[in-house]
Amino acid sequence: MQGFRFLRIPLFPSNALFFVSPTPHLLPVKPISRIPIKYFSSQMGSSPSSSSSKLLFRQLFEKESSTYTYLLADVSHPDKPALLIDPVDKTVDRDLNLVRELGLKLVYAMNTHVHADHVTGTGLIKSKFPGAKSVISRASGSKADVLIEPGDRISFGDLFLEVRATPGHTSGCVTYVTGDEPDQPHPRMAFTGDALLIRGCGRTDFQGGSSKQLYESVHSQIFTLPKDTLIYPAHDYKGFSASTVGEEMKYNPRLTKDLEEFKKIMEHLNLPYPKMMDIAVPANLVCGLQDPAC
Amino acid sequence: MQGFRFLRIPLFPSNALFFVSPTPHLLPVKPISRIPIKYFSSQMGSSPSSSSSKLLFRQLFEKESSTYTYLLADVSHPDKPALLIDPVDKTVDRDLNLVRELGLKLVYAMNTHVHADHVTGTGLIKSKFPGAKSVISRASGSKADVLIEPGDRISFGDLFLEVRATPGHTSGCVTYVTGDEPDQPHPRMAFTGDALLIRGCGRTDFQGGSSKQLYESVHSQIFTLPKDTLIYPAHDYKGFSASTVGEEMKYNPRLTKDLEEFKKIMEHLNLPYPKMMDIAVPANLVCGLQDPAC
Repeated sequence: MQGFRFLRIPLFPSNALFFVSPTPHLLPVKPISRIPIKYFSSQMGSSPSSSSSKLLFRQLFEKESSTYTYLLADVSHPDKPALLIDPVDKTVDRDLNLVRELGLKLVYAMNTHVHADHVTGTGLIKSKFPGAKSVISRASGSKADVLIEPGDRISFGDLFLEVRATPGHTSGCVTYVTGDEPDQPHPRMAFTGDALLIRGCGRTDFQGGSSKQLYESVHSQIFTLPKDTLIYPAHDYKGFSASTVGEEMKYNPRLTKDLEEFKKIMEHLNLPYPKMMDIAVPANLVCGLQDPAC
Repeated sequence: MQGFRFLRIPLFPSNALFFVSPTPHLLPVKPISRIPIKYFSSQMGSSPSSSSSKLLFRQLFEKESSTYTYLLADVSHPDKPALLIDPVDKTVDRDLNLVRELGLKLVYAMNTHVHADHVTGTGLIKSKFPGAKSVISRASGSKADVLIEPGDRISFGDLFLEVRATPGHTSGCVTYVTGDEPDQPHPRMAFTGDALLIRGCGRTDFQGGSSKQLYESVHSQIFTLPKDTLIYPAHDYKGFSASTVGEEMKYNPRLTKDLEEFKKIMEHLNLPYPKMMDIAVPANLVCGLQDPAC
């Protein structure tokens, strides 16, 4: 199983689960190939960037449920191992077609949590792309090939995601964060699911939700990341595609409040019962029901 | 007028128009501040990236017309000069609120062309953000503060966009491309309007459209860019957010065909008359009519 690995780091020694590539892949460093000085000379800055030469990143949108699916791959690795975060059943063909066109090898189809507003595509993906494994948190109570826990590291090629527990919207919510190492993308990227939305957050009135827990999750697990960390949520309803930790710490209308005020806000949202909930939640406990074995 | 400049480069000496900042801004090079070696040592690669430490980039979506608006700013510059490409009237408040929250100084509100499917927000932006200038191509026949021509360079801080003529969807369509210099974003980014969409292209049956001209525009002005150049179109209807020149050269179902086949495809699209056309086009010739003086 070369090129990607699933590693439970020593911080959490119990339930250790290792899919480790036998040797690190030492790839040639890509030169910057085009340095024409056409119009004027200018400074050469070191450029910590929102991506790296290794990372292929695509944000995909499902309009009906306003869900973002994320495609990440290590394109510097010979296998081009890739993962999809929060795929939707209705857009699986679009996503897998893109994976194939880009010559990627899909390793993981992952969820940030058990969604209540759409049916996950992970089961369908497994049936259409043999070899891909479904991933969700053990705390979600769902079935999947890989049940992750806080502190786990999900590797694809030389890139990896850290797992952070961010319960509160549901009891099993996690945030996936790109690694804090020099060869990983800079700034870091946090896939926050429904824990933290852009200028908002997920509701906390069902599926084991708790406004207190959500508040603590966001403050301890997300707002402690570097301020330039890019926030990529599971949904957006206003047309925003990304934010940063710094922006949300300053402008999130809910999470900038103190805990008591936050709890009051969350108690009085008066949101309707999710249309898809009774179909989506049972299905999403088993990878969208397309594959009962997950 | 420090911090941003509009420069017609010497290639096109007639109609020279110069707004040049008096001196180049020599900013300190930012160090990479976090280099912990926590888990394993790894290679340090030079990282040509999809952005730079200078560029703030946001993709914004207007759901009704499936329009992408792009916000770009040079955040390394003291003024944080910014521009918006293809703003929509209905989402101007969202966009300007974001501009203010991020502490940016909006310099330009630009269009890639006269849109037929939504009303531009450039006039409204000017009324709400004094100092911002509207920008569109001279070939569009529209009114605006700055009428750009092919070869023009639109600078904001130390970053700039090149103007490329890409007529065919309309006779005045342009593509804005980030600069080809070492301190500009790598890979380059092309804002293609409706000339090139992800796995598609704009229709050519009205507003001076010509399928032959569109084919030649895309092949001569966009497909000649480096293959890793990121494509950011004015619309997407399937939930894609970006592509690359290389991908479109390989997988665009229309523009990979020869000219004759392309012309046949475009002749037989049988698309309905755009709902907004009779309102949007006259309005967009004068910055969305919100400001008749543009």
